Amino acid sequence: MLSRAAVLHRRFATAVRFHAQGVPTEVLKVEDIGLLPKSLGQHEVALKFLAAPVNPADLSMVTGGYGIKAALPAIGGNEGVARVTAVGPAVTSVKVGDRVIPAVAGFGTWRTEAVAKEAEVLAVSDKIPVEYAATLAVNPCTAYRLLADFAKLSKGDVIIQNGANSAVGQAVIQLAALRGIQTINVIREDQHYGETVEHLKGLGATIVIADHYLGSADFKRLIADLPAPKAAFNCVGGQNGLEITKVLARGGVSVTYGGMAREPVMTSTTALVFNDISLRGFWMTEWAKHAPVEERKAMLSELAELMAQGKLRSWVETHPFSDFDAALEKVVNRSTKRKVVLLME
Amino acid sequence: MLSRAAVLHRRFATAVRFHAQGVPTEVLKVEDIGLLPKSLGQHEVALKFLAAPVNPADLSMVTGGYGIKAALPAIGGNEGVARVTAVGPAVTSVKVGDRVIPAVAGFGTWRTEAVAKEAEVLAVSDKIPVEYAATLAVNPCTAYRLLADFAKLSKGDVIIQNGANSAVGQAVIQLAALRGIQTINVIREDQHYGETVEHLKGLGATIVIADHYLGSADFKRLIADLPAPKAAFNCVGGQNGLEITKVLARGGVSVTYGGMAREPVMTSTTALVFNDISLRGFWMTEWAKHAPVEERKAMLSELAELMAQGKLRSWVETHPFSDFDAALEKVVNRSTKRKVVLLME
Repeated sequence: MLSRAAVLHRRFATAVRFHAQGVPTEVLKVEDIGLLPKSLGQHEVALKFLAAPVNPADLSMVTGGYGIKAALPAIGGNEGVARVTAVGPAVTSVKVGDRVIPAVAGFGTWRTEAVAKEAEVLAVSDKIPVEYAATLAVNPCTAYRLLADFAKLSKGDVIIQNGANSAVGQAVIQLAALRGIQTINVIREDQHYGETVEHLKGLGATIVIADHYLGSADFKRLIADLPAPKAAFNCVGGQNGLEITKVLARGGVSVTYGGMAREPVMTSTTALVFNDISLRGFWMTEWAKHAPVEERKAMLSELAELMAQGKLRSWVETHPFSDFDAALEKVVNRSTKRKVVLLME
Repeated sequence: MLSRAAVLHRRFATAVRFHAQGVPTEVLKVEDIGLLPKSLGQHEVALKFLAAPVNPADLSMVTGGYGIKAALPAIGGNEGVARVTAVGPAVTSVKVGDRVIPAVAGFGTWRTEAVAKEAEVLAVSDKIPVEYAATLAVNPCTAYRLLADFAKLSKGDVIIQNGANSAVGQAVIQLAALRGIQTINVIREDQHYGETVEHLKGLGATIVIADHYLGSADFKRLIADLPAPKAAFNCVGGQNGLEITKVLARGGVSVTYGGMAREPVMTSTTALVFNDISLRGFWMTEWAKHAPVEERKAMLSELAELMAQGKLRSWVETHPFSDFDAALEKVVNRSTKRKVVLLME
């Protein structure tokens, strides 16, 4: 016997899938994935997706360069937010009407509907815009962990980061500023440089600097009045990542969470041997696999609350799900600095 | 009133000094450094040097590229062994006739005689050859700490190291073999390649491989039967150091203790982010500054005992102190793979 709630309106679902790994613009196809099942299992939930971002990491998974390989054919997208439309008889952690986000990587969020196990989703605040909820689980959480897990950072301390206008970088700036931690932010100098500097300063950045100044006398003068950074956050690599490790305080740590330059991560023998720095890596997916669910929920609540209060903002642009190809092009061509989020309704 | 033991025979002392930082063959001069003082202070000891090595790190200190800057004019040499010829009235930790090694960096060991504070020397076994005693404090101790402090290594575990025929590398091979730890040893392929391979295998090396094989399919096949290495020891840097981090086990650590290639230390974003490896540095001088003296003494005793038993051998060649220039040339030109040790008597 199934409860009423578990009897689904049978609907067609649409998804963006790939049947082989390859160039995203070639292998990703908007497809009808068929009818949802007629009823839910004991611990299943039915979901109607509201929003999902197109992240660079999602595209790495499509090309095959990511730490997770998808079973093919696969639905793209790892992040998103959905509304619970029905629950199986034994479901206790969420109820119909709740907003949820995937608790696991590789969910396949570029779709209109889904049926999932209760354990595969986490309830999330409905006090924040859907495009914020859809992008809460990876980037703001990565920023949170970077600031929490690698160095003991207190009011007045300094961190340095490259790719500072990335979604993680912007969250780092805001979360650091809320705690009185000063940030040295390295970005590329492009045609939007002035605008980006203003934006990051508006978020609370202490110093914003173009990457070609790294290692220069000007750079040394600019940071001379600040304590040496206790931590560096690197999502670029190559020469840029090397330079930010050279200004670390004795015993400082450089944490890599991305590799936009597609070059090796570098540091100097001198920094490692004589200045006792260390290099670490961070991957939110791996953290989430091992962290107690209560710790993760508490972090998500804290971040959502900051968003609801306007203290943690994201630079987002939204596209209707029906315009998937246009949204994808913007991410592939890096023609926007904003996070690209698909809206499903 | 001075005790009899504290009244010195007044002797001339000879030393190799530099009055300015620069090219070692140009700035290092054998000089008469004058008469020793007529008597010893309460906590002073008089030393007659027996042997001292010429290490690459000593030369870095002469050129100015080392983590310690010498006060000029400075006597070269950080390591060595001396005999205590007289002690001040309050000295308790060593007695006349004892062999001692410097307890501190920057001692200036390229000399025939010295007066030092009791706390600046450590007694050392007289059961081992002087050329072993003179080279005990840095390289074998570095190998000891590399194996002890960075990864939990048990019987059957594997480490990988480059510069494996360095003095540290050879000590790592022997100490690892004594504990049942397997070693993958990367060396350069030069005209002495065959001889070096045989030598390292004779010390207990599991696998010895030329560096140009790193990253190749052959290399992967060669190490396929071993567990993935839990630790990498890097004294080279550049591409070589990058490749050895790529084969580390999940959560493995790469420890840099030298930079012979004079290139940045590199790893990959993938290894850091998806394989959770870390990069650390090790500097014996810094360790010695912070370690309890009893821990250091215990390590020195253990290593000297292994040497006395023939279980820890060094590849050493000796030169009379009067031939300093010839000895220096051999180190500068890297025309020997052996550790170059000066004999003062």
